[in-house]
Amino acid sequence: MTSDPIRRAVRQLSRLPGIGEKTATRLVYWMLTQPGDVPAQLASALQELDASITECKVCCTLTTHDEDPCRLCARGDRDDTLILVVEHPQDVLAFERTGEYRGRYHVLHGALSPLDGITPDQLRIRPLLERLRAETVTEVVLATDPNVEGDATAMYVARLLRPIGVRTTRLAHGISVGTEIEYADTVSLARAFEYRRELS
Amino acid sequence: MTSDPIRRAVRQLSRLPGIGEKTATRLVYWMLTQPGDVPAQLASALQELDASITECKVCCTLTTHDEDPCRLCARGDRDDTLILVVEHPQDVLAFERTGEYRGRYHVLHGALSPLDGITPDQLRIRPLLERLRAETVTEVVLATDPNVEGDATAMYVARLLRPIGVRTTRLAHGISVGTEIEYADTVSLARAFEYRRELS
Repeated sequence: MTSDPIRRAVRQLSRLPGIGEKTATRLVYWMLTQPGDVPAQLASALQELDASITECKVCCTLTTHDEDPCRLCARGDRDDTLILVVEHPQDVLAFERTGEYRGRYHVLHGALSPLDGITPDQLRIRPLLERLRAETVTEVVLATDPNVEGDATAMYVARLLRPIGVRTTRLAHGISVGTEIEYADTVSLARAFEYRRELS
Repeated sequence: MTSDPIRRAVRQLSRLPGIGEKTATRLVYWMLTQPGDVPAQLASALQELDASITECKVCCTLTTHDEDPCRLCARGDRDDTLILVVEHPQDVLAFERTGEYRGRYHVLHGALSPLDGITPDQLRIRPLLERLRAETVTEVVLATDPNVEGDATAMYVARLLRPIGVRTTRLAHGISVGTEIEYADTVSLARAFEYRRELS
């Protein structure tokens, strides 16, 4: 009894992670009963997204065709000797929000996961190696996620970097700032003890 | 540092109810890293939605320009003497899923809510009255939601129907099927007692 365009929109929306058929149906009917042409505006934003986004030819993060290399790679005030390697473009934004990192980035677009069919050639590892040959990089910080896949990816990349002779580091583990030790997870607590620092 | 098309898509997506900026960001990046051109397909479905959906000229539910009157109004096997009045097009689907209702529908597109600025002239009450004059309807079931707005709307419509002389009913309240009495809400339980039925 639902008309086909509604069914089609529900099916497309329910492909998104965390949005099931019920939520998608609710969203579609909500859009249809709003003033201000919500479906058309969302459609146009998504089409622009589809048409304009590409991977930066330097760091492989997502950028527009107009800005390639991306804004961060184009900036002259960043430290060219340092590359922070992350899994996703969103991770770049997370580091930028800290306001403390002044080097460059490289986005792998995922982590090794043989069970999910993600092998080294699907990650942007080759462009990273090419950057290291061409540029004046002295340190690569491997900031992949602290889980099995992220750790494996960091180990794999570190092994490839060894012959190049660049300093390779990994983010520190420890307890989160603002956490209560009582509720900290055991692994982070163990790492926090292991990597304890001298008070200066 | 986010490119503008990404920011625009995030802003449009985060207008949807229940989707905040964080979720919208996650969805946009997810779409951009999927195979199979997800943003373009979703955009096209939403554009079709925008271009093709209209209100049925009989029952006011949402339908396409190609199917007006809607499929349900066009069916010859439904009981023309009975109209079930609901707030939203989704409510029609809910009743159709029961497989037990054989009459016609009328969609008000909301409920009276003076505080939200929803007055009688914003609901599809006038088309309902016109249907009653023209058709052979003997009963109108007011199936607005069982809350303050829905009850007020039902009372308001019932008062308008009185001079027409059509039988006007309201859905029964009671405890849900499959519920445990221990956990039933007190109002429903009180109504279930009040409307108790003779065992036959």
